[in-house]
Amino acid sequence: MNNCFIVEGKKSITEFLESDYDLIKLFSVDRSFFSKIENQVNIDNSLLKRISFLINPDDHVAIFKLNDVKPIDNNNLIVALESISDPGNLGTIIRNCEWFGVKDVICSKDSVDCFNPKVIQSAMGSVSRINITYLDLCSYLKSSKTIKIGTSLNGKSIYKHHKSFDNGILVFGNEANGISSDLFNLMDYNFSIPRFHNNKFPESLNLASSLGIILSEIRRKSI
Amino acid sequence: MNNCFIVEGKKSITEFLESDYDLIKLFSVDRSFFSKIENQVNIDNSLLKRISFLINPDDHVAIFKLNDVKPIDNNNLIVALESISDPGNLGTIIRNCEWFGVKDVICSKDSVDCFNPKVIQSAMGSVSRINITYLDLCSYLKSSKTIKIGTSLNGKSIYKHHKSFDNGILVFGNEANGISSDLFNLMDYNFSIPRFHNNKFPESLNLASSLGIILSEIRRKSI
Repeated sequence: MNNCFIVEGKKSITEFLESDYDLIKLFSVDRSFFSKIENQVNIDNSLLKRISFLINPDDHVAIFKLNDVKPIDNNNLIVALESISDPGNLGTIIRNCEWFGVKDVICSKDSVDCFNPKVIQSAMGSVSRINITYLDLCSYLKSSKTIKIGTSLNGKSIYKHHKSFDNGILVFGNEANGISSDLFNLMDYNFSIPRFHNNKFPESLNLASSLGIILSEIRRKSI
Repeated sequence: MNNCFIVEGKKSITEFLESDYDLIKLFSVDRSFFSKIENQVNIDNSLLKRISFLINPDDHVAIFKLNDVKPIDNNNLIVALESISDPGNLGTIIRNCEWFGVKDVICSKDSVDCFNPKVIQSAMGSVSRINITYLDLCSYLKSSKTIKIGTSLNGKSIYKHHKSFDNGILVFGNEANGISSDLFNLMDYNFSIPRFHNNKFPESLNLASSLGIILSEIRRKSI
């Protein structure tokens, strides 16, 4: 089946049902939890285990229809991700973005699919509310007139920048390689989170945690 | 084999070899990368796939000996974790702790094992340098005279606290349930990271990201 994706877990399914995504079918071992949902099919536990991506499936597997792409709102802070490969990282990033009021996440076309079941699972429902757009990131950044905020291991300390950013594009690179030089040359700022000791380890922070810390730093300056 | 643990990946193995953990045996498809390590056994790819925990094994699997427990240094900031269940989360937390200069991580006895291969993998070598102690967390906190800093969804905004903590025990609870009431009653502070919008979603931030943000906030105040 094309143009659809799977959501598992009562909480995530509930949040997608409350969003503007349309349910195609809900497969349930026990219909009582979603008793008001008509578009529901009873299945047994052995079928649930076959169609679920989880080791311990949670009684329900829902199939939703993909929505059409929505326009990006350039008046708010946008997060752009280059070549993100780990689905757990992407899900956590989308959840962190929602917490800090980011409404648009842009991904380069070679990033992991945001409708991958592991992304949906680690985003805890946030995929249903964040506008996620896959595009040619280099062309987009070249054509955009918004401020571009890069992040790397060798930038200016984020703690020493005292302005907030009400809009702008905050760019994070691939987990292992960071932002590519092509994109890096387009940045107006280059920020780092400094280590609080003099050793060389760990080499880097986890990507989703870094993004959470940078978003927290940007938002706290607006308080 | 008891009292030992597995490390995979060239980077992590290199960092454990540089630490005070003793190598028991290094299994290698290609001996050239660790050519100076004598305690090495050649294996072929099919055996590597059988002994590795990774989907794409990285040529080497090392077995190290567990060290004796070391004393906790109460003069520095300590991170304490209650009932952490996700190994990826624990690994990322240990890595974040090292970045922000935390040397001791304390885990309640029902937390996931820090020598679980998934913890070692997501900690990226930090397990080799951080002192991790499993103990009865409630008894420990009751007997400790150090400041206890709790975190929850309903605490005081961390952005409104303007002092750093050079020492103290920063406590985080289980991914789904937070800090138990028994421990919570022992806290001197209760901090939250506020959402930057008025919706109720997402219900929470990812645990490792929250810990990174709180550590960043504590440390930035000491600059």
